[in-house]
Amino acid sequence: MIKALFLNCSLKSSEETSNTQSLMNEVITHFEKEGVKSETIRIADYHVKFGISEDEGEGDEWPIIFEKIKTADILVIGTPLWIGEKSSVATMVMERIYGASSLTNEKGQCIYYNKVAGTVVTGNEDGAKHAARSILYGLTHSGFNIPPNVDTYWVGEAGPGDSYIDAEGHRNEFTMQQAKTTAYNLLHFSRMLKENPIPAEGNLIEN
Amino acid sequence: MIKALFLNCSLKSSEETSNTQSLMNEVITHFEKEGVKSETIRIADYHVKFGISEDEGEGDEWPIIFEKIKTADILVIGTPLWIGEKSSVATMVMERIYGASSLTNEKGQCIYYNKVAGTVVTGNEDGAKHAARSILYGLTHSGFNIPPNVDTYWVGEAGPGDSYIDAEGHRNEFTMQQAKTTAYNLLHFSRMLKENPIPAEGNLIEN
Amino acid sequence: MIKALFLNCSLKSSEETSNTQSLMNEVITHFEKEGVKSETIRIADYHVKFGISEDEGEGDEWPIIFEKIKTADILVIGTPLWIGEKSSVATMVMERIYGASSLTNEKGQCIYYNKVAGTVVTGNEDGAKHAARSILYGLTHSGFNIPPNVDTYWVGEAGPGDSYIDAEGHRNEFTMQQAKTTAYNLLHFSRMLKENPIPAEGNLIEN
Amino acid sequence: MIKALFLNCSLKSSEETSNTQSLMNEVITHFEKEGVKSETIRIADYHVKFGISEDEGEGDEWPIIFEKIKTADILVIGTPLWIGEKSSVATMVMERIYGASSLTNEKGQCIYYNKVAGTVVTGNEDGAKHAARSILYGLTHSGFNIPPNVDTYWVGEAGPGDSYIDAEGHRNEFTMQQAKTTAYNLLHFSRMLKENPIPAEGNLIEN
Repeated sequence: MIKALFLNCSLKSSEETSNTQSLMNEVITHFEKEGVKSETIRIADYHVKFGISEDEGEGDEWPIIFEKIKTADILVIGTPLWIGEKSSVATMVMERIYGASSLTNEKGQCIYYNKVAGTVVTGNEDGAKHAARSILYGLTHSGFNIPPNVDTYWVGEAGPGDSYIDAEGHRNEFTMQQAKTTAYNLLHFSRMLKENPIPAEGNLIEN
Repeated sequence: MIKALFLNCSLKSSEETSNTQSLMNEVITHFEKEGVKSETIRIADYHVKFGISEDEGEGDEWPIIFEKIKTADILVIGTPLWIGEKSSVATMVMERIYGASSLTNEKGQCIYYNKVAGTVVTGNEDGAKHAARSILYGLTHSGFNIPPNVDTYWVGEAGPGDSYIDAEGHRNEFTMQQAKTTAYNLLHFSRMLKENPIPAEGNLIEN
Repeated sequence: MIKALFLNCSLKSSEETSNTQSLMNEVITHFEKEGVKSETIRIADYHVKFGISEDEGEGDEWPIIFEKIKTADILVIGTPLWIGEKSSVATMVMERIYGASSLTNEKGQCIYYNKVAGTVVTGNEDGAKHAARSILYGLTHSGFNIPPNVDTYWVGEAGPGDSYIDAEGHRNEFTMQQAKTTAYNLLHFSRMLKENPIPAEGNLIEN
Repeated sequence: MIKALFLNCSLKSSEETSNTQSLMNEVITHFEKEGVKSETIRIADYHVKFGISEDEGEGDEWPIIFEKIKTADILVIGTPLWIGEKSSVATMVMERIYGASSLTNEKGQCIYYNKVAGTVVTGNEDGAKHAARSILYGLTHSGFNIPPNVDTYWVGEAGPGDSYIDAEGHRNEFTMQQAKTTAYNLLHFSRMLKENPIPAEGNLIEN
């Protein structure tokens, strides 16, 4: 069974409604139809310490999340937008993910090899591609595969205004098609890589 | 008299309508009220060569534009968005501007000192802040002063859709206020720097 | 007296050596010669909560820092680089700064008006301009003035390697000249704005 | 046989030496060992018009290049750095590539499906990850697959200095390993996608 892990990098804990979660759920719905098992973690519910090691010591709950990343086949980073950029929580998560990119699997490749990744971004206006660019690059640079068209986003017109839920962003056909494509391309590549793992040639990490 | 130069970096020449020009005109209208003399150049009407020198030789029309930059007090770079980024024409213009940033004024400072700069960005969706970030940074890094809030932009909701003119972006209060603030802050700082040029201390270029 | 506030956005608290601090100190040394009073805050020493309000409630120490920003004339954001980007701590700080940008001064302008800002970036390799671009844009978008050439950085050659201190980055003439220009241009503009505050025309916030 | 197309987006035509080409050649050397057929195009040798259509009309030589992209299995975009960003030539190429992303293959998917892409970046200092971020995102957003770790770059220490060739960047072990990984991961994924094309489910373009 293919397992997908969604990391919701809202600045808010799960006591509050998350627009990003609402759009991530569209991707999850497609996964459900295909038998992919999805799990979502709201990062702000955990005490994640700043740093780049696998475990920043006493009280750091990143290791709980990192264990889930290690067993996931598909990783989706969701983020809101502030000043047209991914959130500080997303930045912290990317640092922690990157920090473990020198760990290796049993073949001597980066531990993230054969995993695929995508992103979901929401904001009331502008910045989605900038955030997606940052997240997808950080993930491919850390060892994940990025299938085509796995950036799902919704933003409204320039200026203050409603966010995804209140603006009824689920009526946006473009965004809904993106959510579908994101789900299916992540799934297609994950299946492909399960059957055909990346050969251990030219890509070993020598520590 | 304060002189403002607007460089419209549309991919299209002036035979075609430019959404970016339409929004730039809002800034120009404010300038007219205040007696600022504005001139607009549609870069695609000229044969500008790729390069970073002041004159790329036979047939290069950049020197015509560069002369206007040298005598302008205010520079505004306008760009459309493609893949959520400033246009290739804008990128070419930034390279040419940067290429001359080692030239000095009579005090030995960068020739762009005491000039102020801003930006105007339009797209049918997403990317305005990314483009503004790139343009304003490139300009401050090249020697221009960036007053607060001189990034004017309009983008629509995520996905395909009308651009500024057809979407009646001029009805967007946020964007209209930005255009006003951009005009006035460029003007305020330009006046201030005309009366109080940047002292030649700690900022000389030693070639 | 002109007051400068340096926010060091290292992931580490002040128990550990900070390369970014070392380069920030070069700017501070120039300020000392000119009678500018500098204060540095290591953000990781404080418990700053994620959010965009001025006060995120119980235990949030951002208000302590925000009070210092309000009384500073010059703000310098220092950051290390991870995956070629500013740190998560810097991102968190930018969100908090932006979150208060709708507050107004006695004239009805953004409270950051008449303040000037710059940045200091260090990393063992690549990413300085990307981080500076993000920080300077976020600050001008939030209401700060950005004088020319106030981005000081040091990075080494591509790949793993020593950071600023061990690599003896202080021997890099380019970086040292940048530190000097950053200090002097921040100072020149701060003095100018103290004597000639931005006129309250065209730039009022209507809440 | 697998075919790789390298687009060198130097600002200079092939009459002048290209540092970017020199690093691209490292990737090509690995391809040669594996029987991949590589072809390089120096974009500045062609008259490519600004625009986003497949053919911008009289005198536009983009269609010559676009034909090669259509038959290539692997695409590598190479760019130098200016102001820490990809070149204007690279930006122009990305616009032209994106402009054709609504064309479909015989299954109704984007024509770039089953193609893989990577990037090679050189500069005398800083900006490689920013350029790679932009290029790889633009390519995945346009329909290419991005295998892990296909961003090869070399930059020197902060400030003016030698570029890749004069600085003997080929002695940089990190960069040489990146070139190898880039070559092999592009090859592994290209082989995988030739044998297992992306299923036409959830990712069709409806024009």
